[in-house]
Amino acid sequence: MNIYDVSKKANVSIATVSRVLNGNPNVSDKTRARVLEVMENLGYTPNVFARGLGLNTMRTIGIMCSDSSDLYLANAIYYLERDLRLNGYDSILCCTGYELETKQKYFDLLCSKRVDAIILAGSKFIEPRPKDNAYIQSAAAMIPIMLLNGYLEGENIYSTICDDFAATYHAASQLIRSGRRKLLYLYTSTSYSGANKLKGCQAALKDGGLCLEPEYIHQCRKDITAAKELLLSLREQGLEFDSILASSDSLAAGAVKYAHAAGISIPDELSVIGYNNSILSRCTDPELTTIDSKVEALCASTVNTLMGVFGGVNVPSRTTIAADLIKRATTNF
Amino acid sequence: MNIYDVSKKANVSIATVSRVLNGNPNVSDKTRARVLEVMENLGYTPNVFARGLGLNTMRTIGIMCSDSSDLYLANAIYYLERDLRLNGYDSILCCTGYELETKQKYFDLLCSKRVDAIILAGSKFIEPRPKDNAYIQSAAAMIPIMLLNGYLEGENIYSTICDDFAATYHAASQLIRSGRRKLLYLYTSTSYSGANKLKGCQAALKDGGLCLEPEYIHQCRKDITAAKELLLSLREQGLEFDSILASSDSLAAGAVKYAHAAGISIPDELSVIGYNNSILSRCTDPELTTIDSKVEALCASTVNTLMGVFGGVNVPSRTTIAADLIKRATTNF
Repeated sequence: MNIYDVSKKANVSIATVSRVLNGNPNVSDKTRARVLEVMENLGYTPNVFARGLGLNTMRTIGIMCSDSSDLYLANAIYYLERDLRLNGYDSILCCTGYELETKQKYFDLLCSKRVDAIILAGSKFIEPRPKDNAYIQSAAAMIPIMLLNGYLEGENIYSTICDDFAATYHAASQLIRSGRRKLLYLYTSTSYSGANKLKGCQAALKDGGLCLEPEYIHQCRKDITAAKELLLSLREQGLEFDSILASSDSLAAGAVKYAHAAGISIPDELSVIGYNNSILSRCTDPELTTIDSKVEALCASTVNTLMGVFGGVNVPSRTTIAADLIKRATTNF
Repeated sequence: MNIYDVSKKANVSIATVSRVLNGNPNVSDKTRARVLEVMENLGYTPNVFARGLGLNTMRTIGIMCSDSSDLYLANAIYYLERDLRLNGYDSILCCTGYELETKQKYFDLLCSKRVDAIILAGSKFIEPRPKDNAYIQSAAAMIPIMLLNGYLEGENIYSTICDDFAATYHAASQLIRSGRRKLLYLYTSTSYSGANKLKGCQAALKDGGLCLEPEYIHQCRKDITAAKELLLSLREQGLEFDSILASSDSLAAGAVKYAHAAGISIPDELSVIGYNNSILSRCTDPELTTIDSKVEALCASTVNTLMGVFGGVNVPSRTTIAADLIKRATTNF
């Protein structure tokens, strides 16, 4: 949407729209009111105008995240905001929730604000059905789209990704090497990142001569108590497991709670590995062995890539960063 | 700073500045370059111009927080952003760190962006020396300043505060009533909120016929391990205590770690109470009794008050919200 849409809709010339925006008194009150009303209806903001004028940039980056109170995303926002500001850019934050429709709405809103780029923080923004991502690809025709730990093919779309596959492959391999044979995999999200975590775990088991049977893969709300309850009920159903690899520290913290409730000793009888190396991993007792998904490095790389794009540098469309396994007290290796 | 400053500094007429902003070709390249350079030097952004024109507002609120990765502030940002958006406002986020100079710089930056109001999230923005807060008071002459859990006297400054005094008073009273006599108080910040927490605790002890001696008041970095180490060293020095009231869940989580390390049973030998009812309080074992400081309600009230200010409604300059004591397993009441 641009100044032409406004002029067409208001049935006035572009010069008139421009006069209204300039506060030029040479416009009748009635026309001014109509133009302003159309702008409001179209969600047209003066930023668009400012950009259409001599000044080419607002030096503002839109950041979208599903939920800023999520520990991982809270850290991501902190690092992104800091690194953008160091480069002289402001950020406008939108917390979108998890519904596709809402995400699209906020995305359009940011576009209409004429931000210089949009960063989609977290892997929740890429939908499984290609057509549901078309709105992102078409926006990329106008401004760079940066994906933080998500991946989408497309011109002017840049991804920085943690190597989740290698991370869970390594963690599961370590569990097998330490003698574990019955690994339970707990996850919340089926996003790009989530899918890779599961694949890495499956590959490690396969390479270890084992198999991750469907009854050993369980989805669970990202909530400590929910994970604890799920594990208690699995145990009650007779499922036997000697190790848990979880796609987040919240789920792993729930596994520790489960072990306490069931009188199971960690790590003697049960090994637990979390994901993200969040503050939760140091709160549980014993403290969690966890995968450090390097959110600070991911944010730095995302901002660096973006600055490269702005500077006309030839940057890679995809950057992968290796995770670390942080060994604490919930594993015996 | 406004269009007049630009015209003066660039030694051109306001009409010329306006022409540059409008992309009007009727300006020499040399003049255009000079005006753009002055704008850049002055940190003048087109937003200012847009506002100076027919459209009176960018519908954008500046949010400042010291650190968005802090659990309390991460939640505050989430709720503020959500509630502002529900009212049709965007937010620009600045994470400022803890240095006065940096805070002032970001504050000025937001003002120069012509935001419609600034929300200072968290009590870290108000300095003990009145002259260090003068910059906030003078900005309030132009736009409303909203303090989330901070307090500063002044026209056009609005505070929404958790009743920290009553919260710690109640918590400490409960500890005394449950038979505790040697209360240790752990805190990180000496902010307005921090001071009230300490005062509430002191008042409760006094009213219970006890006294909070200086050796029972300890400052500690907001870090689980730091708190644990501090408590271990206090114990080594022979300090005896049967209960800990902490100004954050991080410190309280450290107290739980300390008890484990020292072989002390919670809550039989030691009671622990945290602050904020954060996710940490459900990670520790046993789970923390903690004060719920009602961040969601504080944010809702802050945004409501701001909308009242915009709407010309007579709103209170100070709103106080009561905290809740959430009883879990680290206390015996």
